[in-house]
Amino acid sequence: MSLIISIDAMGGDFGVDVTVPASLACLQENPALTLILVGDEAVLNPLLSQSFSTYGERLQIQHASQTVEMDESPSKALKNKKDSSMRVAINLVRDKRADACVSAGNTGALMATARFVLKMLNGIDRPAIISTLPSIFGHTYMLDLGGNVDCTDEHLFQFAVMGNELVKAIEGIENPKVGLLNIGEEEVKGNEQVKAAAKLLENSHLNYIGYVEGNSINAGHEKVDLIVCDGFVGNVALKSIEGAAKMIGTVLKESFGKNLLTKAAAFVAYPVLQMIKKRIDPRLYNGASFLGLRGLVIKSHGGADVLAFKTAIKLAEVEVSHNVIQKITDQVEATLAQRATS
Amino acid sequence: MSLIISIDAMGGDFGVDVTVPASLACLQENPALTLILVGDEAVLNPLLSQSFSTYGERLQIQHASQTVEMDESPSKALKNKKDSSMRVAINLVRDKRADACVSAGNTGALMATARFVLKMLNGIDRPAIISTLPSIFGHTYMLDLGGNVDCTDEHLFQFAVMGNELVKAIEGIENPKVGLLNIGEEEVKGNEQVKAAAKLLENSHLNYIGYVEGNSINAGHEKVDLIVCDGFVGNVALKSIEGAAKMIGTVLKESFGKNLLTKAAAFVAYPVLQMIKKRIDPRLYNGASFLGLRGLVIKSHGGADVLAFKTAIKLAEVEVSHNVIQKITDQVEATLAQRATS
Repeated sequence: MSLIISIDAMGGDFGVDVTVPASLACLQENPALTLILVGDEAVLNPLLSQSFSTYGERLQIQHASQTVEMDESPSKALKNKKDSSMRVAINLVRDKRADACVSAGNTGALMATARFVLKMLNGIDRPAIISTLPSIFGHTYMLDLGGNVDCTDEHLFQFAVMGNELVKAIEGIENPKVGLLNIGEEEVKGNEQVKAAAKLLENSHLNYIGYVEGNSINAGHEKVDLIVCDGFVGNVALKSIEGAAKMIGTVLKESFGKNLLTKAAAFVAYPVLQMIKKRIDPRLYNGASFLGLRGLVIKSHGGADVLAFKTAIKLAEVEVSHNVIQKITDQVEATLAQRATS
Repeated sequence: MSLIISIDAMGGDFGVDVTVPASLACLQENPALTLILVGDEAVLNPLLSQSFSTYGERLQIQHASQTVEMDESPSKALKNKKDSSMRVAINLVRDKRADACVSAGNTGALMATARFVLKMLNGIDRPAIISTLPSIFGHTYMLDLGGNVDCTDEHLFQFAVMGNELVKAIEGIENPKVGLLNIGEEEVKGNEQVKAAAKLLENSHLNYIGYVEGNSINAGHEKVDLIVCDGFVGNVALKSIEGAAKMIGTVLKESFGKNLLTKAAAFVAYPVLQMIKKRIDPRLYNGASFLGLRGLVIKSHGGADVLAFKTAIKLAEVEVSHNVIQKITDQVEATLAQRATS
């Protein structure tokens, strides 16, 4: 089984400074991996020249003359940047020359380009973005995280079906627990789309456990494998959690750095603080998957550093080796066929 | 100026075990305060008998024969519990016998009862819930936090006007920075209601600074005094932050408690860990205000302990002494008059 991943080498806030070292580290760690770095070959060649002898055919460059800016509008990127590193990296997936693509480029442009180039699965109206977040039980998958606002019940149901297949494939769980994000566990609460989506989920093949609240993402009463929500709500929740973690990190740093005594305490507590960081380091949760497309695209955080971008590449490796796209495609077709005849 | 607050003594997960000691502590700390504890006098009398001599007229009991259950539906509470501690405590505000009411009872029932008993301000369609959350800049006010799903742009605008007056009154800020919660700072993003609300805010007397994202609640790029959002989104954000904080707290506890060495580190770091806790302890942020009503009702977290419930009572004291309800009423009337003639 091949494991070829195209990398949008120019994407992200730091471009090749991050994508190149992260790519080389992944090649070193996984001997089965081939990476195609897409970007300006005049920039990439000198950076990679010493590595070709080490990795041979497993390290390739695909030239692309343009770069999509981080603040470029999706429609302009689509129209004017037909030879961008982002677009060419996705083209490689379409042409079956790569099994997946990883980009830290701007989310809107990446989604628009992926959708245009790869096309949607039959039966899916909108692509969704899924990612994991740390929880006291391990981690929780959540979608949609930003692609879709004003979702209907049917959209939410489609997200659940796709996310469920991804969680099954990656985690090896037979029947992932699927929760619907709401503002209360009582039946009466929630907006109209969420209530209607609950009915669809109750009557589906999914292991739907009911409504869950925002705290279930990181620390609910019980483990939830997959949380489904509108992309507006999901993005706000994700960013709110990021902000809370950042605030607590800032308070920790300020408190331990306050004076000589607290600095001494920090010195003593250093191994513990490192242990804590390791469990909730957002860089170890970097990488979101676009679902609903005829090919695999992984979005890295734009501000990702080398460790974070490596995490995103590794996520692509895992999803390719678990054949996630094929499994989602099969299930979407089966589920929609069932729904059409029921 | 009077400072009389009615306490729903039977409300919350712990009822009198929390409300009574918290009330007595507040009476001790503020000699200008009068509290009317509302509930079953057969329960309250023995608990308070020794305190009457200390506080005299400042400590009163108002009998109420019923209690609203934490999982009771708002409509049932409204219909069947006309002599509940919650209802009677709110009645005291309506009858001008109290300046505000504090309850840890169930949010839905409290909101429905407050709305029914106190009535809405002219020009406000829906009451909203506002609270503060800790941030790296101090704290941030946010509304709506759970009362309202499927808000229109006009609702969001009304929330902003009311919240702005509250922040001005309590914080003494002339022009609070008002942000609208969205999923991106670019103009193109967001759902339809949010985009339309942005236009209303741009053309208003408010110091509207534009869209803010979820991370702005706790740790954005710049200080925002007031964040306005739909009650669905606000509740999810609030609960997500609660979950993130709980997860980090759990990881901290587990890591420091792992073995003898880490426990020794915790011992050394204890004063710092206490300092950290003090800055982000959610109990010090307990208490949410209902806005849009003809009277002041403060909702405490149902699971509040004595310290947390004390915080909610103190919030009521602050809002009464700053005349918050009158200021909101004046501004709502002025703003709506202005809007009607423009």
